[in-house]
Amino acid sequence: MAVTLKIMRTNQQWRLAARPVGLFKNSDFAWHEEPVPALADGSVLVRVIYLSLDPTNIIAATRDSYVPAVPLGEVMRGLGIGIVEESRHPSLAPGDIVQGMFGWQLYASVAGDGLTKLPQGVPLAAFLGLLGHIGLTAYFGLLDIGKPKEGETLVVSAAAGAVGSLVGQIGKIKGCSVVGIAGSDEKCRWIREELGFDAAINYHREKVLAAVKRECPRGIDIYFDNVGGEILEATLSLINLRARIPLCGMIAQYTAAGPVPGPSNLLNLVARRAKIEGFLVTDYLPRAGEAIPQLLEWMNSGRLKFRLDVIDGLEQAPRAINRLFEGANLGKLAVKVSAEP
Amino acid sequence: MAVTLKIMRTNQQWRLAARPVGLFKNSDFAWHEEPVPALADGSVLVRVIYLSLDPTNIIAATRDSYVPAVPLGEVMRGLGIGIVEESRHPSLAPGDIVQGMFGWQLYASVAGDGLTKLPQGVPLAAFLGLLGHIGLTAYFGLLDIGKPKEGETLVVSAAAGAVGSLVGQIGKIKGCSVVGIAGSDEKCRWIREELGFDAAINYHREKVLAAVKRECPRGIDIYFDNVGGEILEATLSLINLRARIPLCGMIAQYTAAGPVPGPSNLLNLVARRAKIEGFLVTDYLPRAGEAIPQLLEWMNSGRLKFRLDVIDGLEQAPRAINRLFEGANLGKLAVKVSAEP
Repeated sequence: MAVTLKIMRTNQQWRLAARPVGLFKNSDFAWHEEPVPALADGSVLVRVIYLSLDPTNIIAATRDSYVPAVPLGEVMRGLGIGIVEESRHPSLAPGDIVQGMFGWQLYASVAGDGLTKLPQGVPLAAFLGLLGHIGLTAYFGLLDIGKPKEGETLVVSAAAGAVGSLVGQIGKIKGCSVVGIAGSDEKCRWIREELGFDAAINYHREKVLAAVKRECPRGIDIYFDNVGGEILEATLSLINLRARIPLCGMIAQYTAAGPVPGPSNLLNLVARRAKIEGFLVTDYLPRAGEAIPQLLEWMNSGRLKFRLDVIDGLEQAPRAINRLFEGANLGKLAVKVSAEP
Repeated sequence: MAVTLKIMRTNQQWRLAARPVGLFKNSDFAWHEEPVPALADGSVLVRVIYLSLDPTNIIAATRDSYVPAVPLGEVMRGLGIGIVEESRHPSLAPGDIVQGMFGWQLYASVAGDGLTKLPQGVPLAAFLGLLGHIGLTAYFGLLDIGKPKEGETLVVSAAAGAVGSLVGQIGKIKGCSVVGIAGSDEKCRWIREELGFDAAINYHREKVLAAVKRECPRGIDIYFDNVGGEILEATLSLINLRARIPLCGMIAQYTAAGPVPGPSNLLNLVARRAKIEGFLVTDYLPRAGEAIPQLLEWMNSGRLKFRLDVIDGLEQAPRAINRLFEGANLGKLAVKVSAEP
């Protein structure tokens, strides 16, 4: 009987059909259905509940970076949270909630060894953001690379985004004056009024350089860069002595047709003895145990707020992901693929 | 009688007459002669022997940076070595050899407190380079920011220049594989055959990216950047995990007419978890006592070679300084202003 049940499961997948040029197009993906195959030894069958949509996905679809690009014809890469439905792995059992690179599909047959088993009693969605790679990115990028000190000025771009909104709040907890840069009045209102940022700049409404200058009368000690481009250039011109610029991403470049020139004022790093330093959350996973309890405490005491922007249905993923590059999402973007248990 | 002697001294000066656009023009300077005024209390009268010409001079003439620009009509700023001819300072006496910001002039009346008194028994010219700001720049920039480890690959640009030639040799002493980038076959021959670099690339003869790729088969762990521009972009694309890019200067930009775009591949700092960090030798002056004995030992044991490119006569300074930006100098550029004692 068990065999019959296995064969009846049908997988749904988005496979990468073409490398995106600029934004994703629907034709960059191909919908595919196939029966879920039998499990290999050591593997588990996961039903995906949430699929995380992240700016880095477009890099994975476009070119090799710290990991190789997704091969054409294969399931699009993505981080997910799901429930184990079948297990041939000794330490995972049906009903366990796990996190891993499940891809853009309903069912993932993956090696059990690489999976993170999530604890019970915390809302699942928290692991998409605050207690997942997003929270760790904000925590370690700001604290380990940015090293904020009380009274310093922190500027963060993509400030209403998943990482940026946490960075600004952690900066406030650490006693910084925090200025966020975002792309709409709604976003600016949210980070200022609900998240407690000291100031918010809508880069569609005013010149970034003049606005940052006005909002940072004592210069910039930390610029947490999520976007690159013009905002990096503007902030570079206003950095203080020994400023730190944690480089988290450059979303402004991900959908550009060709190479985007860097800032023309890098030399200011010399005059200010400052640094730009790239980092990846994957390097910090072994230290997640330092961050998670602290993030949880801040979350439970109401000092750290987090918003999810959840789109319903795997079939929506190709359209939903462009929200990241169009500045349309408010908070962490994710797709609900199937029901929570 | 002493009064009469003082009045008879005539100073010769190059004053800044216009802000340079691109390279220096002769008309950017005005020659000026005037009697040397009486000394104020606490000051000394220094007869300049050597005037150091450095890439940073054109920044001082052009715009504010970590120090304000030289005001038009004032004596051009510059580091020098000279001999005290008269003193109204308690700890300096006629005959003392001193180093300080004496400017482009034969006589400088300066506060005694800011001066470094040089020890006897070492050739004066050594303080222009190896044992002066150049040596300290190379020493601390490479060791403190670059942090070389044995077996790593170090790339240095302006490699036949004053700082670059020392950086490469210190890199060799520390066990690195060292690749220099310079602008002529003569320079390349010098750094490879006489200074012991493992490889040298003439950027006028071949494409930098392809050449660096060929000479750095294991990637780049440290790029000591003196130039910015295209070479920074090429090396950024070849950096290894946790690479360090000490940013010493960006000579390629100093004479540009307008803003020069930065590298389009800064994002590689994220994928490689690497950093670009600016530094200034002035911050390390309090630690000079760590570096000087070590540099002296390396010099005396023949492991650290240094070449001076000395132009005779203060009147030559405006023409001589462009050698830095045209890539014409080999080694440390300086002007001999008056005779050594």
